[in-house]
Amino acid sequence: MQNPEIEFFWDAASPYTYLASTQIEALAQRVGAGLRWRPFLLGKVFEAAGNKMPASVPAKGQYLFKDLQLWAKYYGVPFKFPKQFPINSLLAQRCGCAADAMGRGVEFAKAVMRAYWVDGTDISQPEVVRHVADATGLDGAALIEAAGQPPAKDALRANTEEAVRRGAFGAPTFFVGERMFWGNDRLPLMEATLAGRLAA
Amino acid sequence: MQNPEIEFFWDAASPYTYLASTQIEALAQRVGAGLRWRPFLLGKVFEAAGNKMPASVPAKGQYLFKDLQLWAKYYGVPFKFPKQFPINSLLAQRCGCAADAMGRGVEFAKAVMRAYWVDGTDISQPEVVRHVADATGLDGAALIEAAGQPPAKDALRANTEEAVRRGAFGAPTFFVGERMFWGNDRLPLMEATLAGRLAA
Repeated sequence: MQNPEIEFFWDAASPYTYLASTQIEALAQRVGAGLRWRPFLLGKVFEAAGNKMPASVPAKGQYLFKDLQLWAKYYGVPFKFPKQFPINSLLAQRCGCAADAMGRGVEFAKAVMRAYWVDGTDISQPEVVRHVADATGLDGAALIEAAGQPPAKDALRANTEEAVRRGAFGAPTFFVGERMFWGNDRLPLMEATLAGRLAA
Repeated sequence: MQNPEIEFFWDAASPYTYLASTQIEALAQRVGAGLRWRPFLLGKVFEAAGNKMPASVPAKGQYLFKDLQLWAKYYGVPFKFPKQFPINSLLAQRCGCAADAMGRGVEFAKAVMRAYWVDGTDISQPEVVRHVADATGLDGAALIEAAGQPPAKDALRANTEEAVRRGAFGAPTFFVGERMFWGNDRLPLMEATLAGRLAA
């Protein structure tokens, strides 16, 4: 039997996506699954699905602010809520697609999420993203240039439309075949499913 | 040091509350915490917090329908999505308060959630709730009668207002002191907190 694959739709603007990104590789290893990181644009997903940012309900926003800190402690990973929030992630996600095309999508994804959710830099700015890419061993200037070209722009649009067509309405969104899992908090369910512990 | 107490705000209309209710007693035991079941009215919480049912986003509703089944498998508990959904839980929750006053709130809470989320009965109907209460060893007719009187009605209103004032915007909602945990999916975080594994 072929190993299953986890598709991980990520957007650097989403804090729960950052949290999940710190866990997903170990999870995939534990269950012997492949892992494919796919950039998408959460703002467009919200728009298409008629969904809103969780923080649009004030009491929820206040709760989630504390909840995120708790998850970071639970996982033992660094986390600092950035001053600049929410953020426009269009450039970061297009760069994600350009990095994918260069075979460096995963490194870039991790670096840009860390730059925002740990270091608090403004990843909507080209000079910030260029620096992040350079520090990861990519050619940052070339990446920013590629992000503005049709292949990267089209790839991001296609990934986003595909995720919505398959049922996505938020982030992070995972697929195992056509089984969708939404949210950092669904990692245990995805793992149990992949480990065969939830047979029908 | 005094044992901590978990306050569990429940509404029988909420499927994730039912799921959490199947786990919360074992969790409290594992961490040596007390447990206090408190009926509240989710519809009023949504109204006060400016929140909406998750299913008001269609793609989310479709996902959650499958998600619920998966959690039930994960926990190994019975679950059947009822034909009658959403449901008006005002009577059930007032009966919850009346049962509380009789010292039988927990038994009633479990029975009425099971009647709805396992057996699929229409718990908005007095004769159904009376039958559920009778089967639990309560006097169902007396309970329905008490549910219509000021003490039960006022208690439900007070519990609901208190939960909102303390930050609630959905269900299930748990408090450990003034630390709030929202959702069945936050049980692991609450347990880790109570077990002292998330020290600041």
